[in-house]
Amino acid sequence: MHATDIIAKKRDGGELSREEIEFFVQGYAKGDIPDYQAASWLMAVFLRGMSDRETLDLTMAMARSGDMLDLSDIAPVTVDKHSTGGVGDKVSLIVAPLVAACGLPVAKMTGRGLGFTGGTADKLESIPGYRTDLNDAEFRAQLAKIGIVLTGQSADLAPADRRLYALRDVTGTINAIPLIVSSVMSKKIAAGADAIVLDVKVGNGAFMKTLADAETLAEAMVRLGTHAGRRVVALIADMNQPLGWAVGNALEVKEAITTLHESGPADLREHCLVIAAEMLALGGKAADKSEALALAMDMLSSGDAWQKFRELVEAQGGDVRAIEEPERLPQARLIEPVPAPRSGYLAELNAVEVGSAVVELGGGREQKDDLIDHSVGVVVHYKVGDLVQKGTPLFTVHAGDEAKLTAARERVLAAHTIGDDPVQRLPIFYKRVAE
Amino acid sequence: MHATDIIAKKRDGGELSREEIEFFVQGYAKGDIPDYQAASWLMAVFLRGMSDRETLDLTMAMARSGDMLDLSDIAPVTVDKHSTGGVGDKVSLIVAPLVAACGLPVAKMTGRGLGFTGGTADKLESIPGYRTDLNDAEFRAQLAKIGIVLTGQSADLAPADRRLYALRDVTGTINAIPLIVSSVMSKKIAAGADAIVLDVKVGNGAFMKTLADAETLAEAMVRLGTHAGRRVVALIADMNQPLGWAVGNALEVKEAITTLHESGPADLREHCLVIAAEMLALGGKAADKSEALALAMDMLSSGDAWQKFRELVEAQGGDVRAIEEPERLPQARLIEPVPAPRSGYLAELNAVEVGSAVVELGGGREQKDDLIDHSVGVVVHYKVGDLVQKGTPLFTVHAGDEAKLTAARERVLAAHTIGDDPVQRLPIFYKRVAE
Repeated sequence: MHATDIIAKKRDGGELSREEIEFFVQGYAKGDIPDYQAASWLMAVFLRGMSDRETLDLTMAMARSGDMLDLSDIAPVTVDKHSTGGVGDKVSLIVAPLVAACGLPVAKMTGRGLGFTGGTADKLESIPGYRTDLNDAEFRAQLAKIGIVLTGQSADLAPADRRLYALRDVTGTINAIPLIVSSVMSKKIAAGADAIVLDVKVGNGAFMKTLADAETLAEAMVRLGTHAGRRVVALIADMNQPLGWAVGNALEVKEAITTLHESGPADLREHCLVIAAEMLALGGKAADKSEALALAMDMLSSGDAWQKFRELVEAQGGDVRAIEEPERLPQARLIEPVPAPRSGYLAELNAVEVGSAVVELGGGREQKDDLIDHSVGVVVHYKVGDLVQKGTPLFTVHAGDEAKLTAARERVLAAHTIGDDPVQRLPIFYKRVAE
Repeated sequence: MHATDIIAKKRDGGELSREEIEFFVQGYAKGDIPDYQAASWLMAVFLRGMSDRETLDLTMAMARSGDMLDLSDIAPVTVDKHSTGGVGDKVSLIVAPLVAACGLPVAKMTGRGLGFTGGTADKLESIPGYRTDLNDAEFRAQLAKIGIVLTGQSADLAPADRRLYALRDVTGTINAIPLIVSSVMSKKIAAGADAIVLDVKVGNGAFMKTLADAETLAEAMVRLGTHAGRRVVALIADMNQPLGWAVGNALEVKEAITTLHESGPADLREHCLVIAAEMLALGGKAADKSEALALAMDMLSSGDAWQKFRELVEAQGGDVRAIEEPERLPQARLIEPVPAPRSGYLAELNAVEVGSAVVELGGGREQKDDLIDHSVGVVVHYKVGDLVQKGTPLFTVHAGDEAKLTAARERVLAAHTIGDDPVQRLPIFYKRVAE
């Protein structure tokens, strides 16, 4: 088999066999196939597409390129969640302890942020001492003991996907359904998930800009999961504005804590309860969705979810005082409100621009190896559809120095529009997709 | 400007601006844009195509990436020829001295062979002492003195094309019209050609397998030449069987010599006369095609073309005795006829297979840096449509050792078909394309 023949077959619209996909993926993972051949193949896949069968074979080839976790001796059913990324998305910080508090084990390996999209592992590292580098034995022991783990990617999960993703990022081949689907699902399958709840974002701050595209992606992921023998539910969620109020690592941890105490933003609370209920239903902890939702609400209001979060932080070496007294979390040197320049209805709050402002403040990464400042970020005080009062804080910028503060202030001001006419609030979820 | 934006624009079917093409080509030539980005861009161009304007901009950007020759002080009109490659294509060895003998200067930089396709520079190096590495001063002095130069690519012509071509070769992006057109024409324009005769091959031994594809390519090249202010004529020639009888470097030089003495294969003679006549007409050496053809025929039969070839070899340091007594050219150790296994009409003589047999004998390159054996090759004794007599030589294999001889014998035997029914002879040219 030759890489060039496989490239040419896909280029000409052919359907690749399982053997050809396996050859290409393992060859690339081992370094036998160079970046430039993978790049031209990726563009051919982007423009020619892949059948469901090819996408499944690609997913499984990438999953099998590294470790395949099996947690069945510890957790009878493993339910995972995945978000396609977004601005202010701290959902895992709340949902994981909430679901674990309901008795469903959650063993989650989380990623790091790149570009305007944040990563859960970065957020957790705002908590002094919190370890995201558990080894396999620690991972299993903690899961068995307290039923929850939230760590970085400790096992070598789908290394072929990691290499291909980095290449897609620089070759204009990110936004292709079979490539997105196989990237997400290969990691989840390698991590041993039996069931998966997908949080598919749509809007200016998401890969998928239109509802139709998001539906196509959600349907493809659900179909793939089914073909791979996993139960999968996808929820299509809004990402035209940031989720919740806070954007930035320590600021998002604080907001997760307030949400676990039932005093956080309403949109974030609802988002988390619905995702948790889907996970509980898939994991067999409730007879139906209504019961699952009731259970999740109970565990949030009872404080059990908060206690589980506390247990998690303690187990992973985090300073529990920092979450009990969140003012101990990293604080930016400069905290300055940005007043609303006029009164009216908030018509736009561009998620990408707010996320990019936080990256510029040092709270995210432009390049993969950039160091990040956990203390900085932006808090939004109004959401789309709200009636804004001139002079009241529209944003609060948390910055490390004056120059960055000024740049971020200008950027967030340019990211919003206030109008005279009433504006519809944005929905939290647009649609649920299941087999 | 960012490479990824340019990739994405072409990926999505957009038309790139001249500035974007210039940025990409110069960036790649300088090494600022890595292979993998160029590879995904090439695949996007392959699948999305390019407008005539984009193709012209790509051609000129590649031409300007290196030296731009200007020979107007030596030759008032520079007419070049280009073949899209083939098996047994020794046309330049005959046409260049033939045209020069008619008083039209020919200054030609020729390429090397790769895969089943031979290169004129390799063939010339069969002649002991023949130099293909003339420097600029030598090149100009010889052109001024004897009106003919046939050398390797001495100037740094279109280095961006050289890099892109090498990348296309390994990324499945060879066969795209805008990429082929810009690759050929950028080098011809950089070499200072005012007029160009294109020898576009069609058939199993050519890039273009069908007449329709070859016409599309020929029309695109003629259009581009016109837009670039050059006079261009394209002839679509058959490459389903080898051209002439000999395939292999020294064997082809011998056949060129016999053709210059009017005792070579009929198809090769006609092919060369027609190409030469087109060049003479474009170069203003004849009032019309008929006159040009008569002039070319005269110069061939008079021996003037042969004398010009002799002058050329002498000027470039070659051993003139080796062309006067061609048995002095490199000879293979083993020369063995392959008898026809049956009588009947020769229905197929697969050019690719014969060319590949010669590569396996060591007469061509599988990789760019392979050394070649000038002495080896295959001579065919019948052409498609001929009535073959069982037991007479169908091929003669010239090999360096027994193992290679055996392999080549099997390969050429598998490359032919003899049938009972009469078979139409293949045409030499299918079509002429001009503005």
